[in-house]
Amino acid sequence: MAKSSKKTSALHEVDGIPQPEFISNRALQNAIEKRRIQPSASDLIQGILANDKTALSRAITLIESTNPDHLVKANEVIQGCLPHANRSIRIGITGVPGVGKSTFIEAFGTYLTQLGKKVAVLAVDPSSSISRGSILGDKTRMEELVKDSNAFIRPSPAGTSLGGVARKTRESIILCEAAGFDTVIIETVGVGQSETAVHSMVDFFLLLKIAGAGDELQGIKRGIMEMADAVVINKADGDNIAKAKLAQTEFNRALHLFPAKTSGWTPKVTTCSAFEKTGIDAVWKIIEAYLKLVQSNSYFEHRRQAQNQYWLLETINEQLMAHFYQHPAIENELEKNKLAVQNNEISPFAAAAALLAQYFKTE
Amino acid sequence: MAKSSKKTSALHEVDGIPQPEFISNRALQNAIEKRRIQPSASDLIQGILANDKTALSRAITLIESTNPDHLVKANEVIQGCLPHANRSIRIGITGVPGVGKSTFIEAFGTYLTQLGKKVAVLAVDPSSSISRGSILGDKTRMEELVKDSNAFIRPSPAGTSLGGVARKTRESIILCEAAGFDTVIIETVGVGQSETAVHSMVDFFLLLKIAGAGDELQGIKRGIMEMADAVVINKADGDNIAKAKLAQTEFNRALHLFPAKTSGWTPKVTTCSAFEKTGIDAVWKIIEAYLKLVQSNSYFEHRRQAQNQYWLLETINEQLMAHFYQHPAIENELEKNKLAVQNNEISPFAAAAALLAQYFKTE
Repeated sequence: MAKSSKKTSALHEVDGIPQPEFISNRALQNAIEKRRIQPSASDLIQGILANDKTALSRAITLIESTNPDHLVKANEVIQGCLPHANRSIRIGITGVPGVGKSTFIEAFGTYLTQLGKKVAVLAVDPSSSISRGSILGDKTRMEELVKDSNAFIRPSPAGTSLGGVARKTRESIILCEAAGFDTVIIETVGVGQSETAVHSMVDFFLLLKIAGAGDELQGIKRGIMEMADAVVINKADGDNIAKAKLAQTEFNRALHLFPAKTSGWTPKVTTCSAFEKTGIDAVWKIIEAYLKLVQSNSYFEHRRQAQNQYWLLETINEQLMAHFYQHPAIENELEKNKLAVQNNEISPFAAAAALLAQYFKTE
Repeated sequence: MAKSSKKTSALHEVDGIPQPEFISNRALQNAIEKRRIQPSASDLIQGILANDKTALSRAITLIESTNPDHLVKANEVIQGCLPHANRSIRIGITGVPGVGKSTFIEAFGTYLTQLGKKVAVLAVDPSSSISRGSILGDKTRMEELVKDSNAFIRPSPAGTSLGGVARKTRESIILCEAAGFDTVIIETVGVGQSETAVHSMVDFFLLLKIAGAGDELQGIKRGIMEMADAVVINKADGDNIAKAKLAQTEFNRALHLFPAKTSGWTPKVTTCSAFEKTGIDAVWKIIEAYLKLVQSNSYFEHRRQAQNQYWLLETINEQLMAHFYQHPAIENELEKNKLAVQNNEISPFAAAAALLAQYFKTE
């Protein structure tokens, strides 16, 4: 019982497929032209396996579609790509707005393609769905990478629920890997629950920071620090270098106080200037050292398996809850019970028992 | 649809009510004698409201009972106590084994009763259910408090699921408050998910530590530090004082690096010796300062409301999942799908969709 509600959208739709708004008019025309003939699932799979970025792009659009008719085809494409997936390194990057995530990904991605890597950049940012493009939308910030033939950039999919957005991104990873991208970067912002979702789909989690006055962790959600495999202090250039080095010392001290990670990895702190393109190599060296460790101690494979199980169970739980809370017999009763609990007229447990009895009766 | 499975227990049962094993033989005989006549729900409520510890104790035993017949009566008692609850300060105390939790609670509880307070001590520790008594079971460690007429001590209820154990403890809080206890201490150990449960039922969360060599946070689960409203370094006596002071400085530095709490409270660090009964007053002063702040900025009431809602939704979600995962049509299929996901034969999302379709079909 996959949930999919048909939504009207203010965005361009081509053959029912919503179009990202950054496509230029000429590109849009071409796209419309091309899409007159709808490719089959096997066309798309063949294209993806032949490393065709257009096929990849169209397949992701299919995954992101809210049209229920597209669901079957999307699942077919994923199924066909699965045996060819799982071969990339997945890197999560988070940081509050203003730390220079786009500039960093531009510099870091370009560095990687120069090493001969094929880099895909995806995003999870449910908040951007409304404005469509607060994250990765402004591609002008990634001028170089967007023109790089060994790079593929895709903004955050639209969607109101984090679960939906995360699912779409995670399925897109499979397609990117099948298309031969060996490094997949997932970007997110340091707000809400999106880090937890991204952390659960990557091999390495990188927290981007800048040196600030006073509280270095201001604005970062609780728990993010503990997830980080590396803290990278950006904008370490000019007058900022000394401040960045100081922040590095502070973070090192703070990270040392956290409990040991099950990966056996000790999180590292480094500084860089994405603008001046300095210190980028050091970031990659840290990731390489991490990979060497977790591949030798089997944590890499173990974690991917655990993530698969996590997404299986998480999706089930999310759907079970959606089915309950959106049930017509429940919605009204829930509000009444919430109020009664609030007024101490009924205990939360008694209220829960009453609502569940109602649900399973009408089910 | 409250879940309650009748379990056989190796423990003494009196009229179907399991007996904690620390009751001496003579006490057990008395208990059997007394319980020949089963008090009604209204008897129990009356007794509790008259501050009768025996009535309170028997009512909690009723709540903890796994006998489905006791459920209705237990709910009646809770319902009758609810209007008289919510009047205490609820303090959560956690710390790994060896930090001296029992000794601390003995010293702290006695300090509070000497201030004229009425102190109830409850526990959440699902792990102790097997051995029955790793926590608070060994009452000899609380010799003074156990004899104190203004104190009430109750070990962790039996149960295999954290949700069940937590629910029982949380309902017991209501009864303790109705019985006039103005300070409720909930003890837990720094393992598993029990801190999150305890954190969600208390006003103030205290992390008990000792000064150790090297990594001060070793052995403490990730995320616990961020929950703490105070870190108390115990065993600050004799040769240990200097080390404890050093640990205090380190913790202060670490806590400063965390994001600000929504309560507006800055977590405090202090040292004490529960054994020598020094520094205990400072702990209480910190809690008083906290209460003053959160009562003036309305966070206290706001948080209690949020906790009520949390337990309502948490209980529902837990039951929805239990119903799904224990469903005969699902259990087998789930294992098959887990394996297929593990072997990359199916994506976690496709597997989830298939299982959900099966569930709602057979429902």
